[in-house]
Amino acid sequence: MSTRQARYEGKAKILYATDDPTVFISHFKDDATAFNAQKRGTILDKGHVNCAVSTRLFQWLEAHGIATHWIETISERDMRVRAVTIVPLEVVVRNRAAGSLCKQTGLPLGSELVPPLVEFYLKNDALGDPLLTPDRLRLLTVASEDQVQELRRLALAVNSLLLEFFRRCDILLVDFKLEFGLDPQQRLVLADEISPDTCRLWDCRVTDPCDRILDKDRFRQDLAQVEAAYQQVLDRVLAQSIER
Amino acid sequence: MSTRQARYEGKAKILYATDDPTVFISHFKDDATAFNAQKRGTILDKGHVNCAVSTRLFQWLEAHGIATHWIETISERDMRVRAVTIVPLEVVVRNRAAGSLCKQTGLPLGSELVPPLVEFYLKNDALGDPLLTPDRLRLLTVASEDQVQELRRLALAVNSLLLEFFRRCDILLVDFKLEFGLDPQQRLVLADEISPDTCRLWDCRVTDPCDRILDKDRFRQDLAQVEAAYQQVLDRVLAQSIER
Repeated sequence: MSTRQARYEGKAKILYATDDPTVFISHFKDDATAFNAQKRGTILDKGHVNCAVSTRLFQWLEAHGIATHWIETISERDMRVRAVTIVPLEVVVRNRAAGSLCKQTGLPLGSELVPPLVEFYLKNDALGDPLLTPDRLRLLTVASEDQVQELRRLALAVNSLLLEFFRRCDILLVDFKLEFGLDPQQRLVLADEISPDTCRLWDCRVTDPCDRILDKDRFRQDLAQVEAAYQQVLDRVLAQSIER
Repeated sequence: MSTRQARYEGKAKILYATDDPTVFISHFKDDATAFNAQKRGTILDKGHVNCAVSTRLFQWLEAHGIATHWIETISERDMRVRAVTIVPLEVVVRNRAAGSLCKQTGLPLGSELVPPLVEFYLKNDALGDPLLTPDRLRLLTVASEDQVQELRRLALAVNSLLLEFFRRCDILLVDFKLEFGLDPQQRLVLADEISPDTCRLWDCRVTDPCDRILDKDRFRQDLAQVEAAYQQVLDRVLAQSIER
C-alpha cells in the first residue's frame, strides 16, 4: 500500500495511479464528512461496505447497459476503475423530497416527486457545491449542452434501474448523487460510488421516520446505529442476484 | 401617523391600510438590513431617497407601458399604491455578474451576461430566500407556468427601460430585484420599490471598483460614504426627465 502513489485524495476515497495509465485504483476509506466537511467522523467498516455495495450496483448497471468506471474489485476496499476525467458536476436524482430540497423549499419530507427531479450542483467545495439553474450551468461551461442532456438521460436511466434493484431489497431509493467522467473517447461514464454515503435509503420494513433511515443521514443527524444501517444495506444488496 | 394601522411591516417599508380598500400607503424607513437580516443598521435619509428614486422610476416605467402599483407620492417617505397581493417571488435580473452569483459560481465580478439572466428566488426569510430552479419553481406552485412566463417577460422589459434610464444618469445597472403583485383582476403589477436598496448601480464616471458602488453594497461591505452614494443616485435620477 505504502508504495502506491495517491493521485487524488477525496473525503471518502483515495485514487491511486497504476502501471497502466488507463486504470486507477479507487480505495474506500472509513472517513465520513457531512455539511461540506463541517462535520467529520468515522463510520467503522464504511470503506468495506461502500466498496462492496458500489461493486454490486455497478455490476447491476453494467448488466443493463450503463457504462461505469468499474473494472473489478480486488480487495475489501479497493476497486480497479477506468481512468476518466471527472466532470465537475454532482448530478442528483430525487424521487422523494428530503435534505436540502426540503430545507430550501419547505416541501414536506418524503413528498413524492413525479417525474423524478434531476438537479445539477457544481462540484466545488470552496463554493459549497452550489445548486445550478440551467442558466448558470450554461454560463459555467463545465459541460456542453449536449453533455448536460446526456447526463440527464443517463441519470434517469440509472434511477429506474436502482429504484428496481432497491425495491427488491425492500428499500426505498429516496434520492442519490452521481458523478460522471469522460473516457479518452470523450464518452460519459458513471464514476465515483453508489452507496449509503451517496444515496438516501429508507427501509420499507420500518415506518418510524428515524428508524427507517439506512444511509449517511444517520451520521448527519447524530442517530444511533450508523454502522448497523450500513451493514443492513450491504446484507440486502448482496442477497440480490444481479441477473435480470 | 400614529393612527394609521400598519398592515405589514417589512425590513425597509411599512404598508398601511387606508379608508379605500384598494389603496395602501407604502412608508419608506431608514432601516437597512443585509445578508437575510443578519446585518442591521440605519442609512440616514434612505427612506426619503428610496421613496423619491422609486417614484421617478415607477413614473418612467408607467410612461412606457409597465403597470406598477404606484399611484402618487404624498410625502418625502410615503406613496399611495394599489393594494395588490404580492407574489412570493423575488425576480432578479442580472446584466453583470455580482453578489451571490459570483459567490456561488466563481464567475468574475462584472462579467457581462448576454442575454441578461433572469432568476427567481423564493421570498421566504425563514428559508433564506433560496434560488429556485425552474423545476423547483414548478413544484412550489407559488405561480402558474403562464405567470412565470409573464414575470420573465415583464422583468426583461423593465430591465431594458431601466438600463436606458440609468445610462442617461451615467450609471451602469448591474442587477436588480423586482417584486410583483396581483391586482383584483389577477393582473401582474410591478410592486415594492426600485432603489439603491434593490439595484446594484455602478458610477460610470468612476473606475475604482469600490468607489464606483452607488448602492446597498456599500452598506453590505462596510464601505464609507453610504449616504453620499444614495444621495448621488437621487440627484442624477431627479435630473433626468421622464419624457420619452
